[in-house]
Amino acid sequence: MTLTGIAPTVFDELESAVRTYCRRFPTVFTKASGHHMWDEQGRVHVDLLAGAGSLNYGHNPAAIKAAVVDYLLDDGIVQGLDLHTSAKAEFLRRFREVVLAPRGLEYRIQFTGPTGANAVEAAFKTARRVTGRTDIVAFTGGFHGLSLGALAASATAFKRGAAGVPLSHVTRMPYEGFTGEGADTLDHLARFLDDPGSGVDLPAAFVVETVQGEGGLAAASPRWLRGLADLAAARGILLIVDDIQTGCGRTGTFFSFEEAGIVPDLVCLAKSISGLGLPMALVLIRPELDQLGPGEHSGTFRGNNLAFVAATAALDHWADPAFTTRLRDNATVLGGLLDELARTHARTGCAVRGRGMIRGLAFTDEGLAEKVSRAAFARRLLVETSGARGQVLKIMPPLAMDEDELRRAVAVLDDAIATAARGDGP
Amino acid sequence: MTLTGIAPTVFDELESAVRTYCRRFPTVFTKASGHHMWDEQGRVHVDLLAGAGSLNYGHNPAAIKAAVVDYLLDDGIVQGLDLHTSAKAEFLRRFREVVLAPRGLEYRIQFTGPTGANAVEAAFKTARRVTGRTDIVAFTGGFHGLSLGALAASATAFKRGAAGVPLSHVTRMPYEGFTGEGADTLDHLARFLDDPGSGVDLPAAFVVETVQGEGGLAAASPRWLRGLADLAAARGILLIVDDIQTGCGRTGTFFSFEEAGIVPDLVCLAKSISGLGLPMALVLIRPELDQLGPGEHSGTFRGNNLAFVAATAALDHWADPAFTTRLRDNATVLGGLLDELARTHARTGCAVRGRGMIRGLAFTDEGLAEKVSRAAFARRLLVETSGARGQVLKIMPPLAMDEDELRRAVAVLDDAIATAARGDGP
Amino acid sequence: MTLTGIAPTVFDELESAVRTYCRRFPTVFTKASGHHMWDEQGRVHVDLLAGAGSLNYGHNPAAIKAAVVDYLLDDGIVQGLDLHTSAKAEFLRRFREVVLAPRGLEYRIQFTGPTGANAVEAAFKTARRVTGRTDIVAFTGGFHGLSLGALAASATAFKRGAAGVPLSHVTRMPYEGFTGEGADTLDHLARFLDDPGSGVDLPAAFVVETVQGEGGLAAASPRWLRGLADLAAARGILLIVDDIQTGCGRTGTFFSFEEAGIVPDLVCLAKSISGLGLPMALVLIRPELDQLGPGEHSGTFRGNNLAFVAATAALDHWADPAFTTRLRDNATVLGGLLDELARTHARTGCAVRGRGMIRGLAFTDEGLAEKVSRAAFARRLLVETSGARGQVLKIMPPLAMDEDELRRAVAVLDDAIATAARGDGP
Amino acid sequence: MTLTGIAPTVFDELESAVRTYCRRFPTVFTKASGHHMWDEQGRVHVDLLAGAGSLNYGHNPAAIKAAVVDYLLDDGIVQGLDLHTSAKAEFLRRFREVVLAPRGLEYRIQFTGPTGANAVEAAFKTARRVTGRTDIVAFTGGFHGLSLGALAASATAFKRGAAGVPLSHVTRMPYEGFTGEGADTLDHLARFLDDPGSGVDLPAAFVVETVQGEGGLAAASPRWLRGLADLAAARGILLIVDDIQTGCGRTGTFFSFEEAGIVPDLVCLAKSISGLGLPMALVLIRPELDQLGPGEHSGTFRGNNLAFVAATAALDHWADPAFTTRLRDNATVLGGLLDELARTHARTGCAVRGRGMIRGLAFTDEGLAEKVSRAAFARRLLVETSGARGQVLKIMPPLAMDEDELRRAVAVLDDAIATAARGDGP
Repeated sequence: MTLTGIAPTVFDELESAVRTYCRRFPTVFTKASGHHMWDEQGRVHVDLLAGAGSLNYGHNPAAIKAAVVDYLLDDGIVQGLDLHTSAKAEFLRRFREVVLAPRGLEYRIQFTGPTGANAVEAAFKTARRVTGRTDIVAFTGGFHGLSLGALAASATAFKRGAAGVPLSHVTRMPYEGFTGEGADTLDHLARFLDDPGSGVDLPAAFVVETVQGEGGLAAASPRWLRGLADLAAARGILLIVDDIQTGCGRTGTFFSFEEAGIVPDLVCLAKSISGLGLPMALVLIRPELDQLGPGEHSGTFRGNNLAFVAATAALDHWADPAFTTRLRDNATVLGGLLDELARTHARTGCAVRGRGMIRGLAFTDEGLAEKVSRAAFARRLLVETSGARGQVLKIMPPLAMDEDELRRAVAVLDDAIATAARGDGP
Repeated sequence: MTLTGIAPTVFDELESAVRTYCRRFPTVFTKASGHHMWDEQGRVHVDLLAGAGSLNYGHNPAAIKAAVVDYLLDDGIVQGLDLHTSAKAEFLRRFREVVLAPRGLEYRIQFTGPTGANAVEAAFKTARRVTGRTDIVAFTGGFHGLSLGALAASATAFKRGAAGVPLSHVTRMPYEGFTGEGADTLDHLARFLDDPGSGVDLPAAFVVETVQGEGGLAAASPRWLRGLADLAAARGILLIVDDIQTGCGRTGTFFSFEEAGIVPDLVCLAKSISGLGLPMALVLIRPELDQLGPGEHSGTFRGNNLAFVAATAALDHWADPAFTTRLRDNATVLGGLLDELARTHARTGCAVRGRGMIRGLAFTDEGLAEKVSRAAFARRLLVETSGARGQVLKIMPPLAMDEDELRRAVAVLDDAIATAARGDGP
Repeated sequence: MTLTGIAPTVFDELESAVRTYCRRFPTVFTKASGHHMWDEQGRVHVDLLAGAGSLNYGHNPAAIKAAVVDYLLDDGIVQGLDLHTSAKAEFLRRFREVVLAPRGLEYRIQFTGPTGANAVEAAFKTARRVTGRTDIVAFTGGFHGLSLGALAASATAFKRGAAGVPLSHVTRMPYEGFTGEGADTLDHLARFLDDPGSGVDLPAAFVVETVQGEGGLAAASPRWLRGLADLAAARGILLIVDDIQTGCGRTGTFFSFEEAGIVPDLVCLAKSISGLGLPMALVLIRPELDQLGPGEHSGTFRGNNLAFVAATAALDHWADPAFTTRLRDNATVLGGLLDELARTHARTGCAVRGRGMIRGLAFTDEGLAEKVSRAAFARRLLVETSGARGQVLKIMPPLAMDEDELRRAVAVLDDAIATAARGDGP
Repeated sequence: MTLTGIAPTVFDELESAVRTYCRRFPTVFTKASGHHMWDEQGRVHVDLLAGAGSLNYGHNPAAIKAAVVDYLLDDGIVQGLDLHTSAKAEFLRRFREVVLAPRGLEYRIQFTGPTGANAVEAAFKTARRVTGRTDIVAFTGGFHGLSLGALAASATAFKRGAAGVPLSHVTRMPYEGFTGEGADTLDHLARFLDDPGSGVDLPAAFVVETVQGEGGLAAASPRWLRGLADLAAARGILLIVDDIQTGCGRTGTFFSFEEAGIVPDLVCLAKSISGLGLPMALVLIRPELDQLGPGEHSGTFRGNNLAFVAATAALDHWADPAFTTRLRDNATVLGGLLDELARTHARTGCAVRGRGMIRGLAFTDEGLAEKVSRAAFARRLLVETSGARGQVLKIMPPLAMDEDELRRAVAVLDDAIATAARGDGP
């Protein structure tokens, strides 16, 4: 029996109209491993979505999966609220050992509700508590989640329009490059902050992504990030890096801000932190800013211990030089391949965006990315679009994807672009 | 090697000060099964927390765990965004078959970010979109989550104070009983809604819990709930039942509003929906209200397929008459035991709250619940407090707990109350 | 030449559709004296509008007018910002001498922009500054002005709907009597304030009218006002009495709260304070609460010195026992006449509202007040309606109106009610 | 008897600490005529404050004063709510005849509460009603009043800080020149409006001053204003010109936007509209936007008929070519004198700001303006500062001041600058 004829009916009949990825990739998926996903027809697809950044190690990485299965079989605690558990203890120690200590970082770790949005909401609470101020400066193109506090900081008009209430307590400033090549967006920001007649109230914090995963893959330069950090520090404004999509290695280092050499006051992590795509989110907090009292921010599933077990196993990657070397190499290879693609399709105005393993292709015709995505799906390559107008093709392979596989995937993309640019159907 | 000496250090050194349950129950838990939790010293505790309502079937129920392990071993999709997956299809069909169809309910199902708060945020968006209005009427004692939109509807001063911004777009009305025995809170509400000089704007929706799990276990009567539903319907106001803690059988039926015989416009479910304590949340929406467009509310982990697999297995309970019979019996037994407890400790003013398997004990001395909780922990019984002042002891056993075990647990509680009431230490 | 044929055209062609009194009383007025107004046809009307409470001493009272004319002829300063002027000095001294000192009151006086709404906005700023809290508790039926801060505290749905944005930072509570005879609205309020699980944040202030001039002439009892003041004092909440319409003698004493024997933290005055209907507004502030710094609230016309001159002259009334005696007598006479009216028209369910010289008549048929107003206008009696549904006839004679004239006016009203109740046209 | 010793005591004892002009100019003023003000010591001061722009025709202009006195003596209606009165009719006809018709403008006229802030609040309500949107774009350095709705649009940190609540529903954009010489602020604005990923919601309106009277006398170029008007029109955004301080001739023409050749959707007027410094404010509305219904915005003193009488008389100036010629000449003379001053004091970095008869002098040392103001007062010249840091000297003579007097006043200023720059005391 095949589910094909039945399952779509189930979704049509029962699932809310708000569903979206399934509309672009209309099939029913059954299994997945590494960068492959199988559907009910037994077709295999190459996955460059990486679960919107939550599958940096690919689907079902063996070691992580094994740790989780063993833990379950052993009746480990699955749901532990924020009780002390041995699973959490092991994660904390491993995270310090593999991530914090080698980078000379001292952070307190807050486990929040297991969504990126919840981590952002928690970070905002801390920033507002610590400073006694209300406003958050967020940037054009930024995306920080869809609960009301996080949504106020998210830039996409379409998402904002769903709030049903005006979104408050956020000041919008231009991200690097938003106002054109010549414009000095940091100088712009500084003028608003420093002039008591600017009409912009001193904010509690800046919240920034180093690469805008939903905002069209714009990437901030290290210089800009350093400038931003300096601006913040000099004015008693906290710097929150939303590393939910860009963290856990996506840009080539564990944190996306390492290249810039800055130390944010607060860092939000989620998506790939569990390594297996399990819901988990956390906020890193400079110790002196850890000022929310017991229970002031909570959430039932902040104690998703299955995710802690997976996350502890996932951290092994960061103790393994082979992994980090492969990641660095892949980033170089992918960058090179995309540059080549851009040259090949120069007539489309193809421009490469992003950094490391989070990349985008923009085209002069803003509708082209959408067409390429559809053409790629016809070729069993899953690649989505990004940006408020869906104007940028978004490419996120597993971090340690085999290089040959990576080349093959880009070759399929090449073909899809050519087809879409010719105006042929998928 | 024992972790005892080490692990607390790890938490103290690394985990944010916001952690809270671990302060009341200061040990490190390692394993759990049914209503038992083991700690690093090998001690076994009886758990009446039920993961704040997310473990209605107890810890690690065998059938659910087995389904999850099998799925993992078979490389099922763990994280699927909102792609169609066979795991989701099976959950949808099973949910319709076991939950919706037998109750004559027609709902669309929206998978939201996997926290209750996110389901509430999504329900508010739909209510605001459908009505074009901004305000939500929430009730005294209500708890709906801690992201900014949900927090505005939550009543606890302590949690609200962490927002750092004024909380808007919510009007507060008295829950049944809040203003005293005689007061007609529905009449009160109707006056505010119907008088154009009341100063209360017509709301988009009411959001209500049938039993206030965080708000001291106040329980609304079926009559009150019907009156509320009628008030809403007559005025084009949507009725949202937040069944996050009270749903999935906690009050004795799958939905907590079944006894009242009402059909809410929107229902939020989370906590126990996955059956294993895995993060999962959803909103049930009357089909004609399903008006958010593709992607208007999204979230990476709304595709937690491991939870779908668990949830599908968990629904088997609701097709099993033995389970529902046991649940009903347990509710009767627990009610009887607690009534007896109240009589025994009449001098403490002990009063029974709640309904079904979500129960509370209030005392004249509001600090007593806290002391009882500590005394119970010393007896290896995990029982927490509820209410903005922690004034009510909250009792949530697994739904199908063995009756003898239930009696033993209440006997320990009896002893703990006696000790606490005497003013002895734990 | 008569303006009759021309002037209405001018209004139709040029004046905004937002105009409203002129629609109910469609003629062009030219002159006025005492309780009389003349129109272009030379008809004389009896005015029971009192300029919505800004003409307590009638139109163009001779002594006040003379003072203003003399001051103008003498090139006194008309507009003085908040510079020290001799006109302001004289007002301050006279206000202390005649109003504050005899009542044992110590207040600082803030001259605000010359509208009641601006005084309310200023009082809210002080309350928020002093307490560090954001919310204001306002009451059902309350009216405090239409600028955004004041409008949030105003209750009428129709006025609120014009804001175009959600109105925030105000909590609405029932005014005495709103929830029915038996309901204890102070107990209700106290429960919300004292229960940390009520969901109502501790407010900066209560803002209250002792008689609701726009809200249907509901009058709070002295007992209720004292209870409210006690509630506020015990919780560090400031009490703002909005005495804009009820102050300056309207209820029988200079301040409307004198009968209750309370001393508000802040008092807003406007409307009749200048005595001539000139724009002027002020806030009285307990000295220790006078915490806004130089210029933190300002406004060009807060220095309307012509109004100070008029106001100084107007205060002579309060040093004149004949005036206060007449006022008291008139209040008694008016009350008696209206009680008689109510008996006469018992079949309409006519009920007397208000207090002193600010009175209302409510009818079972809520549309009747409107019809009476139109019938009265046909009889050259100007009397308006109040309440969010225009359901109460509002009667505000000059305070010291001649008793016979008062009787004649009520006789006309009697006739108008009879006609309207019979369903005849005006 | 001199009041000197007494009056200050009265102010100290009774007037709120919020008073501000009197601190800079510490004397008690008694009389005023033209550009002269007398104090209690009989000293005469030259007034370049012009009542913060409300005395464009000087103090007590004879013809206006005479009209007002005659009206009073004749028992004209002083306070008329928004009843039709002959005084209002005459103003409307005269305003059409002298102001609207000659400029080919068609506007409806809304009389609002008699403060500029109230006119701004009313304009915002109309803009939000017409567009169904909530946000207003306001500019750096802008000042629009201090009631909550207007304050949200005002830029000065010090004034905003007095709100006590976060200020919402306003988006701040750079005024011409704010981000430096080279920056194209209109292009900047357009990018935010046109990119659905900018995070700035489409606004209901822009609100702009052509010269920023409180914001340091920055003046927008005609080109910039035209660009702004085009931006608005192309996107269905309303353009509100706040001409409260710059209107009524202050920049050299009746409306300050005439030079730019634009026709705003809404215009706010107040300050000098009555000509005598009496409180009066209005909004001009394009007829098709006049969508507030009867009474949706109201206010007791919108019927200040004394101001209508004065305003009608004041409009005679605009029918008198001698006045407009003198105004133009004065603007030229003043500009020349200030340019000369700037050259003389080039060492202070003195730079001329503003346009027409609303002028500023900025200095390299931002504290110098304050010192000059004090030195000028010692020389009996009243001149204030502007800008959020008080960094610009603000010069506003009566529009038709005698040229020789103007030269004398600037000579005194010259001396004051020299003294202040030397660092000598006043």
